Amino acid sequence: MKLPKRFRFAGQYTGVKKNASKRDLTLIVSDRDANAVGMFTTNKVCAAPVQVCRERLPSSNIRAIVVNSGNANACTGEQGLRDAKQMTASVASGLSVDAKQVLVCSTGVIGRPLPMDKVLKGIEELLPKISAEPASFDEAAQGIMTTDTRTKTTFRQITVDGKEIRIAGFAKGAAMIGPNMATMLAFLLTDAEASPALLGPIIRRAVDRSFHAISVEGHTSTNDSVILLANGASGQSAEPVRDEFAKAIEEAAIELAVGLVDDAEEVTHRLTIDVTGTRTEEEARKVAKAVADSPLVKTAVFGNDPNWGRICSAAGYAGIEFAEKDLSLRVNGTLLYDHGVPTKFDANAESARMKENFEVHIELMFELGQASCRFWSTDLSTGYVRFNAEYTT
Amino acid sequence: MKLPKRFRFAGQYTGVKKNASKRDLTLIVSDRDANAVGMFTTNKVCAAPVQVCRERLPSSNIRAIVVNSGNANACTGEQGLRDAKQMTASVASGLSVDAKQVLVCSTGVIGRPLPMDKVLKGIEELLPKISAEPASFDEAAQGIMTTDTRTKTTFRQITVDGKEIRIAGFAKGAAMIGPNMATMLAFLLTDAEASPALLGPIIRRAVDRSFHAISVEGHTSTNDSVILLANGASGQSAEPVRDEFAKAIEEAAIELAVGLVDDAEEVTHRLTIDVTGTRTEEEARKVAKAVADSPLVKTAVFGNDPNWGRICSAAGYAGIEFAEKDLSLRVNGTLLYDHGVPTKFDANAESARMKENFEVHIELMFELGQASCRFWSTDLSTGYVRFNAEYTT
Repeated sequence: MKLPKRFRFAGQYTGVKKNASKRDLTLIVSDRDANAVGMFTTNKVCAAPVQVCRERLPSSNIRAIVVNSGNANACTGEQGLRDAKQMTASVASGLSVDAKQVLVCSTGVIGRPLPMDKVLKGIEELLPKISAEPASFDEAAQGIMTTDTRTKTTFRQITVDGKEIRIAGFAKGAAMIGPNMATMLAFLLTDAEASPALLGPIIRRAVDRSFHAISVEGHTSTNDSVILLANGASGQSAEPVRDEFAKAIEEAAIELAVGLVDDAEEVTHRLTIDVTGTRTEEEARKVAKAVADSPLVKTAVFGNDPNWGRICSAAGYAGIEFAEKDLSLRVNGTLLYDHGVPTKFDANAESARMKENFEVHIELMFELGQASCRFWSTDLSTGYVRFNAEYTT
Repeated sequence: MKLPKRFRFAGQYTGVKKNASKRDLTLIVSDRDANAVGMFTTNKVCAAPVQVCRERLPSSNIRAIVVNSGNANACTGEQGLRDAKQMTASVASGLSVDAKQVLVCSTGVIGRPLPMDKVLKGIEELLPKISAEPASFDEAAQGIMTTDTRTKTTFRQITVDGKEIRIAGFAKGAAMIGPNMATMLAFLLTDAEASPALLGPIIRRAVDRSFHAISVEGHTSTNDSVILLANGASGQSAEPVRDEFAKAIEEAAIELAVGLVDDAEEVTHRLTIDVTGTRTEEEARKVAKAVADSPLVKTAVFGNDPNWGRICSAAGYAGIEFAEKDLSLRVNGTLLYDHGVPTKFDANAESARMKENFEVHIELMFELGQASCRFWSTDLSTGYVRFNAEYTT
């Protein structure tokens, strides 16, 4: 793994979380002004740091992102907004830049004021520790985790005329993940030269195909943010390799997004849902989302039950026009439903195959058009319910 | 309880279900031609009996409804359609009426052909048993149950100039209940004189306020049906007491709908969700449905956690325009969120109160307009997941 040039990282424990063995504060620093774009939660109840980032993006001179975990600084009113801004001011002061050149994210429990004494002391301690070492990158990735059990990271590189463009990213998720990004933070960093005008459409497309195509329980959170920084330190413009660059960003985003699904709270199966043959991509997404969000589909998968009926009936209420004969279904490659009619198949063998594999591949095949989409979801386990019934930090 | 005049009932075991201690076939007979209206699933994958009923309604000469449980006759192709029609023909022959005067409903596992030998033999045995006795009404209510643990029945009466109009109804639910009626069957019977033109708007309004306002897991099924029969045997027209009659039908529908929620699979709490102060009823419904369907809200309630953050953030992604300060929240009468700011409250006391009561009352109060709605939902328990992961009849 090679990190993009001129980025430095740090992550440590500051006391926001109860458990002192866990990091809860992260710094990402670019030594050069970075072009930056972001996408944020669509929730009307949105956290203070999201409001601050929205004001400051897009930008052509971002120098740092500060992130705390354990407390979302959401539903905290004017005080929350002051706290979020003070976090950026404190980092800016340490880096001798303007507060507006610093972004801020928070994730964790909502409705509680940030313990600012601890956060500010933490920032002070963290600033001298920033480094371009892989170990620091990893600590930064740890510092944003909440109920995640492992870090989610991604690395890509593109070589253009002997020059290397590097991309690195990390993300956190675990729960409250709906297809509108939910309690999810993702940071993508590149040393490509790329203007906000170039980055904007690329991030939107990548997020549509990744973070907007995953669902744990459909609950859009107050804090979700995806931020992309490009500091140009490679000396190579992304312009001449736009498509390749866009593809690398998209693949990086997908790797992080699928990583979130795989590490979702108490997940026992990943559902990979392919919808093909709809009139539009929007139609494909509607069907995929209905299946991805159906508790009956998700509990069936948890029980290793190849329950084609629940899958097809979820497609049936997705809100797209079709007749039963327009739909066929494969699960793990086996045709279970053929143009509106269930097939004869060995349910025990299919169930055994589901049990053996973490991934369950669901293919809903229409014959209405040429559009398609891919979606990822989790099963719904007794562990998930227990976890979320008992959850408080 | 007084049954509406000139209706007769029967319910018994025929062998569609494995468990011979359970009834699985029901007959509702009107001795006079009844005006009839119905509302059915919006799922594109819809069961054969739904297709048959849709063809035959509205009608002015319905004489019977035959219902089997244990097998939904859904996703069964042309054979399913033939079987559904044969069920009506068999009942019609026994009553010496036309097959088109008989309606049919099925509920249970989908994708398996009906065991028609058993069903037809059952109809033959059942026909001589129909009776106007309360005990037969109760057996009919039992015959439509699947994973329901108890019958859901309702009775109303209106006196007009000394004449009595009676209404009786029964329903089944248990799971796959979304706000578009899901695996849910409900039958409302009245001896009022009422034309299909009068009954149509009344049933639509009543269903909007009752079966369309409940949610167990948001999965719209292939079979849901609500049928209202009016046979005029009271000799009293509903016309002069239209509002009172409509209200009685609505109340009866709400009693059945809430009964379905209370008997949902492995439910431990009923959520009664009141949304007030939105611009339109449609907006209120969007918010109520987002809260009612949120697995994070539902697991929090299962855990007796007064988690205002999950409730308010579900409202935030419901898709209506509002600012945080527009929203306040009460749970069980206690103000937890006041114009965008969480209040100081005794979380232990609130949690203890939730634990002691089956019903949790959630009030989301906006100040955007005068519209409102009431919705009912269930919590999400580990038992529900276990039940639905292991379910097969």
